[in-house]
Amino acid sequence: MLIYLAGPEVFLPDADALAQAKRAVCARHGATGIFPTDPVDCPEADHAEEAWLAIYLRNEAHIRRADALIANLTPFRGPSADPGTVYELGFMRALGRPVAGYSNTDTPFTERTRAFLGPAARPRPDGEWEDAEGLHLEAFGLHDNLMIDGGLRAAGGPLVTRPVAAASRWHDLSAFEAALAALVKSA
Amino acid sequence: MLIYLAGPEVFLPDADALAQAKRAVCARHGATGIFPTDPVDCPEADHAEEAWLAIYLRNEAHIRRADALIANLTPFRGPSADPGTVYELGFMRALGRPVAGYSNTDTPFTERTRAFLGPAARPRPDGEWEDAEGLHLEAFGLHDNLMIDGGLRAAGGPLVTRPVAAASRWHDLSAFEAALAALVKSA
Repeated sequence: MLIYLAGPEVFLPDADALAQAKRAVCARHGATGIFPTDPVDCPEADHAEEAWLAIYLRNEAHIRRADALIANLTPFRGPSADPGTVYELGFMRALGRPVAGYSNTDTPFTERTRAFLGPAARPRPDGEWEDAEGLHLEAFGLHDNLMIDGGLRAAGGPLVTRPVAAASRWHDLSAFEAALAALVKSA
Repeated sequence: MLIYLAGPEVFLPDADALAQAKRAVCARHGATGIFPTDPVDCPEADHAEEAWLAIYLRNEAHIRRADALIANLTPFRGPSADPGTVYELGFMRALGRPVAGYSNTDTPFTERTRAFLGPAARPRPDGEWEDAEGLHLEAFGLHDNLMIDGGLRAAGGPLVTRPVAAASRWHDLSAFEAALAALVKSA
């Protein structure tokens, strides 16, 4: 079972070490982890004129040949997950294959958004919240935007969230392993 | 041609008016705009126990029956586009149908991310930038995370970015119309 490892770890200075650690966890569960930067046969990417487009095309090729995807949804530079990861989750859901998610925080989305907005978040008379421009804050008690939680739910995929100290949140793999184990078991 | 209108407009207090305005622009270009909150035949959603899941399932049903998708990628509560919109863009790209994007800012992603991070952004000796935890900032001169620009490019879809005053950025439809016209023409 080939599992695509979606997440912002590619931006870490020790991305290679983390790729290796995630692959080792996959192997322990009888699966093969595919890290975005792994080599892949993709002639389109080989002929792409721009480096960024080659990266995109290889990521897409990885996802298309993977059996499943596990997404690191730990909030990234804002209240939500890394947008590249979210794109890949939507992509795999549309392919109809198993998906899983995990996050190294269990603070709900609404609370994170309110903390992010600070004094710009304001209550409405009906008890809901909005930002300084009047745009509503989702308040469904979910982990992230409802499209993210919804994609996982619709696919029957696990979503594991755990409170992890901020300093460890890019390296602690316990929520990853729990979500991976559930994904492998159910797929 | 049914075009799904992905974007964070659903959070606006005047979402219905904006839906109507976008539908009118679509009609001018011979297309039919589908707003996320439009009714759609979706028995799964009708039977969903949770309101948020019903919304997700209806959005997915809309996208599955649409011929194309146009995404409002105007930055939303952070340097990147609304994550629900990004999810939907990835979903439609995986279905292999035409996609388009637009944004009411033309400030590049790297600059937006540096502005967002403020003093936490720091230069590396090699001229690249990283955040306070050492995570790299993408610097490809793109509009957003490379998966977003890449999905549009790979699909041959337009990406129109325009500088719009912050106060008008949720209501100015000129970039939307330009991207829509290009989408209709190419599809």
